[in-house]
Amino acid sequence: MAAELLPDFLPSPLDKYRRASTFNWKSMRLLLEDPEMLEYKMKIWKFFEEDPEFQHPNKKLSLDEERHLAIRRMYRLKKLQNLTVEEMMENPRKPGAYVAAIFHYDPSLAVKANINFGFYINTIRGMGTARHYDFIDEVEQGKAGGCFALTEISHGTNAKGMRLTATYDPRTKEFELHSPDFEAAKCWVGGLGKSATHAVIYARLITPDKTDHGLHAFVVPLRNPATLQPFPGVIVGDMGEKVGLNGIDNGFVLFNRYRIPRENLLNKTGDVTPEGNYVSQFKDPNKRLGASLGTLSAGRVSVLSIAVSYLERAIPVAIRYAAVHTSQAGSSLTLLEGHYQQWQLIPYLAATFALKILSNFFSNLMADFQVKTFLGTNKEELAKMGPEIHALSSAAKPLAGWMVGDAIKQCIDICGKYGYLKASGLGDIRNFTDANCTYEGENNVLLQQASNWLVQLWKNRKGSVHDFDMPLNSVSFLSDAADILQSRFMAVSVEEAVNPKTLLSAYEWLICWLLVTTEEKLDALLKSGADPFTAKNNAQVFHARTLSLAYAEHFMLSNFWKYASSKDIDAPVKEVLMKLCSLFGSWSLERHLASLYKGGYVNGPQASEMLREGIMHLCTQLKNEAVSLADAIAPPDFILNSLLGNSDGKIYQNLHTHLFQKQQTFERPSWCNEVSFGQSKM
Amino acid sequence: MAAELLPDFLPSPLDKYRRASTFNWKSMRLLLEDPEMLEYKMKIWKFFEEDPEFQHPNKKLSLDEERHLAIRRMYRLKKLQNLTVEEMMENPRKPGAYVAAIFHYDPSLAVKANINFGFYINTIRGMGTARHYDFIDEVEQGKAGGCFALTEISHGTNAKGMRLTATYDPRTKEFELHSPDFEAAKCWVGGLGKSATHAVIYARLITPDKTDHGLHAFVVPLRNPATLQPFPGVIVGDMGEKVGLNGIDNGFVLFNRYRIPRENLLNKTGDVTPEGNYVSQFKDPNKRLGASLGTLSAGRVSVLSIAVSYLERAIPVAIRYAAVHTSQAGSSLTLLEGHYQQWQLIPYLAATFALKILSNFFSNLMADFQVKTFLGTNKEELAKMGPEIHALSSAAKPLAGWMVGDAIKQCIDICGKYGYLKASGLGDIRNFTDANCTYEGENNVLLQQASNWLVQLWKNRKGSVHDFDMPLNSVSFLSDAADILQSRFMAVSVEEAVNPKTLLSAYEWLICWLLVTTEEKLDALLKSGADPFTAKNNAQVFHARTLSLAYAEHFMLSNFWKYASSKDIDAPVKEVLMKLCSLFGSWSLERHLASLYKGGYVNGPQASEMLREGIMHLCTQLKNEAVSLADAIAPPDFILNSLLGNSDGKIYQNLHTHLFQKQQTFERPSWCNEVSFGQSKM
Repeated sequence: MAAELLPDFLPSPLDKYRRASTFNWKSMRLLLEDPEMLEYKMKIWKFFEEDPEFQHPNKKLSLDEERHLAIRRMYRLKKLQNLTVEEMMENPRKPGAYVAAIFHYDPSLAVKANINFGFYINTIRGMGTARHYDFIDEVEQGKAGGCFALTEISHGTNAKGMRLTATYDPRTKEFELHSPDFEAAKCWVGGLGKSATHAVIYARLITPDKTDHGLHAFVVPLRNPATLQPFPGVIVGDMGEKVGLNGIDNGFVLFNRYRIPRENLLNKTGDVTPEGNYVSQFKDPNKRLGASLGTLSAGRVSVLSIAVSYLERAIPVAIRYAAVHTSQAGSSLTLLEGHYQQWQLIPYLAATFALKILSNFFSNLMADFQVKTFLGTNKEELAKMGPEIHALSSAAKPLAGWMVGDAIKQCIDICGKYGYLKASGLGDIRNFTDANCTYEGENNVLLQQASNWLVQLWKNRKGSVHDFDMPLNSVSFLSDAADILQSRFMAVSVEEAVNPKTLLSAYEWLICWLLVTTEEKLDALLKSGADPFTAKNNAQVFHARTLSLAYAEHFMLSNFWKYASSKDIDAPVKEVLMKLCSLFGSWSLERHLASLYKGGYVNGPQASEMLREGIMHLCTQLKNEAVSLADAIAPPDFILNSLLGNSDGKIYQNLHTHLFQKQQTFERPSWCNEVSFGQSKM
Repeated sequence: MAAELLPDFLPSPLDKYRRASTFNWKSMRLLLEDPEMLEYKMKIWKFFEEDPEFQHPNKKLSLDEERHLAIRRMYRLKKLQNLTVEEMMENPRKPGAYVAAIFHYDPSLAVKANINFGFYINTIRGMGTARHYDFIDEVEQGKAGGCFALTEISHGTNAKGMRLTATYDPRTKEFELHSPDFEAAKCWVGGLGKSATHAVIYARLITPDKTDHGLHAFVVPLRNPATLQPFPGVIVGDMGEKVGLNGIDNGFVLFNRYRIPRENLLNKTGDVTPEGNYVSQFKDPNKRLGASLGTLSAGRVSVLSIAVSYLERAIPVAIRYAAVHTSQAGSSLTLLEGHYQQWQLIPYLAATFALKILSNFFSNLMADFQVKTFLGTNKEELAKMGPEIHALSSAAKPLAGWMVGDAIKQCIDICGKYGYLKASGLGDIRNFTDANCTYEGENNVLLQQASNWLVQLWKNRKGSVHDFDMPLNSVSFLSDAADILQSRFMAVSVEEAVNPKTLLSAYEWLICWLLVTTEEKLDALLKSGADPFTAKNNAQVFHARTLSLAYAEHFMLSNFWKYASSKDIDAPVKEVLMKLCSLFGSWSLERHLASLYKGGYVNGPQASEMLREGIMHLCTQLKNEAVSLADAIAPPDFILNSLLGNSDGKIYQNLHTHLFQKQQTFERPSWCNEVSFGQSKM
């Protein structure tokens, strides 16, 4: 199986490191990825490699060309996907693997396809009723394009501030959509800029008695599917070029008393009768909205797997480059032999594994969660799990987003002058990542939500072990908080200092201490007259924010450790995983060293010296594993698409061929005669 | 003067903050920038704003178009500059102001013009003799284009590893240039990709007796100026698209037994007689090379001013956005009122001022240094200043480069969904900055050089106050090291904790402690059998590297403090500068908190609590000054060229106009009929 799925590498300058590694990279890969899913992804990647529509462009595309390519590929892919619908039904993890495979190849395409065929359709399915299923069929059959519009131009992070209205007119049985001004335009809508014909749109529903029933979702036809011309009353346009992800045509839309049939209201949680009476099973509009926006945890969890896909491209590029490039021509001392470079790169390699294992855990959990929600089994556990998943995903999503940005910065730095080549791929990956920090919730807001939950839990404790008894056990240790707060860093050797058990204990202390100090800070602010909003705001930096990040790191580390400790892993693979786990934990904890000192958990120079020594030891121990670890996570060369990161390690030969085979390399510029110096026309 | 030069702002949503600030932004600006130089820059910027060639393109350019635009602008600018040659002669600071003005507008143009008219010409002037002046005239007159080629494909950071040879043939009185293979190609040469006709090229000079005399510089004709066709034996091409700075056509060149006249050797420091004998005033080839590459400190110092120009664009964009955008539509609570956002942004505003003041200091010093070197006065002081400037600039350049990257990350984060718009300008600025981290020396190598100098100085001390007596006083406090190492953090209030004097003392302790621990680490490594190279390598992380960064931060802080303390500054301006100085210092020091605890300089929770409280207090105190501080550093709106950062603060109106006035916003895509859903062609 492994041999067919994962071919051996050809002889390469990377062999020195490949031979020096202590484990089999194929075993590692087949441990981290379900063989069936890997086979499926490999099949998709193979298709990309062989299909003319999926060849990498050999020049800079215009914005129009980028969008054209993305939409062509989207429909081409849909045809491929249609062939495998049965396979999809067989295994519920396939949709995830499908999206991941596309994300590795082209995130713009993945997002665009996911909005059109995923988000638009799922929202209608989830919030609409049988009367809306035609809208789904049209998109499925390629007769219409769908998108999803929530955000408005000047609204911030609070959904309650939206201003588009949908006023019901019982005479014509229509809703009239109206945007009071440009600032109320829906914006950043993926797929809307140039191509979508329909949108799910959120607007405040107003009944004839002038009651505002809050945000509701409507299916709104925007453009004539035959001509792509907008309908009268619809002002729809393109947001223009972005920092990255330019295959997606993000758009905005304004409505000028634009009318849609009553039936276009997605009416699962609330409806308007033909006469204009509002009916809903939810008394509290907040709860109705909560139910309708309830899938946001899934969105945040998906950001984790997007982050993994970026890391799985960037980190192997930098590691393979560092394993070949020498600081002096003819020397055998590669960059990877440098302590400094090891420290720049290998902790991020460890973090990639930590995040991948976390993302796998969450993906399985969410699939399970959704099945159970659907079947209605185990309701009590689910009700409890909801807030815990919300808090964990809200804390982990910012951590993951920032981690990718920081990792890519190091990768570009390591690759020096060549990292700056567009063909390194690193610049593009960086320009993709910013979106991870804004969509599915702004990072600072999410971190605040996670800490609010933790602090509330802490405040409400009654001294029983059940206070912190949650399905995912992310806070169960808090029932021992009194003892934990008395504990101290006890390691007496470098090895012990970076042992995951030591690190987990330190994190437990850190989270308890941050809860105590955050609560103290909040109380002090409230006592000094601050309102609760201001108090929470002012307790963020150095307190609540750090608490949320530490909470995410602790869970990530404990999840990694449990995974690496499981019995059925090959010894050599297990050993490397344990080192990665130690490195991820010690490197993350080291950044909290000031807090550990401040709270008295460590004292004197020895403890931090051991921790730092341990980090450097682990980096050095892992440098011979690094290439094989990169091999275990990197997509195939065609998908990786980096001049520096090819699995053959032949950087200079690849550069040579790349430059010499490109027409643009040697052709004289189009403006050649204009600067012809003989005539000095300039 | 101020009123003419700096017009008042029109009424704006930013007025709330502008009125709340305690100082006059014009006074601040005219303090930080020489009014004459500011006037000159304003004149250049006005020219850009009014000249058709300098209008901002309203669509994504192809690579060819970007290069075309840059070269047209370069020659257009040359004509403008020619008009002001007399002004240039009058004031030696003008060339610096000229380059800075262009950098704010378009860094590609600045680099391209600076290579062609600056670096190429200056190298010939500095290393050549009268026989080479024709080459200078041709470029000055626009009859040829010049560039500068040192780096080779596979060579790293060590100039000694270069492999291009120039072998002298006494029969024809020519040098034969030959690249043994592609890895010896000169690469990354700015201006060479498409347009340069001549290059200053470094090659190993070989005399007929087969002696290798090491690297020498030659002027080499590459392309026919009339046709831009390369000469036979020259393989010259383009490196292709980069992450940023794509107006510059970086190129590579290979030579196949290509011959140039003997006279093309730049022969100031070494020459070959017609018969083939090598003659040089330098016995030691290292010294000759050192003399010829001696301007590298100037290059590093110039990176500081480039970093300032990027910060002066990015920070005002984020501050003006944060001062207008509210987290909820209709709310009066702007982002700038949030503690978290203040902490994200205002320390980088303070760092911008710290870096600007440092960069001004160095620019003046370098101008002075070059004049003195030229006149040959004060030789002893200069000889001493050389290494100190080398160390300071080697430590400050990485600090500045990384600071810009980190600052822009926060700016993009603050601007949320709008930061991701190309029209925010932030993505472009980030994509420019990477080059700052690689050119003029790789950051890790430079940091190592700075720490090597410091450690050597420390090891060689003999106990006299003169051991550390350097012209710039960057290390003079080390003569009190014994006392300093005994000192402890003594502040008893938040105000005292962030007082620059307190912070400078803490930095003095930190540098002494890092010297002691780095020396201990090095000794331990040597004792355990490591060779000196490996020992230095392995003592980088957590030791020598931190030392270099702390050294640069201390100098930056002390330079800022001296500047802000000078008598002749208006009281309100002075007060704000002092707060910025405190914030920069305390925020920088806070990141070393773990070291301060580890070494015992602080103990218990109070000291770090005061420091962190102080940082947050300063952020809050400065939030009402932030907009005026941004006004004091931002270039005019046309130059800033950001949809979010306009001085009128009318973000949504500007976005509205921008979107509605662009043809691309509403036009149907070129592939419209292809996706016309009516026919379902997809």
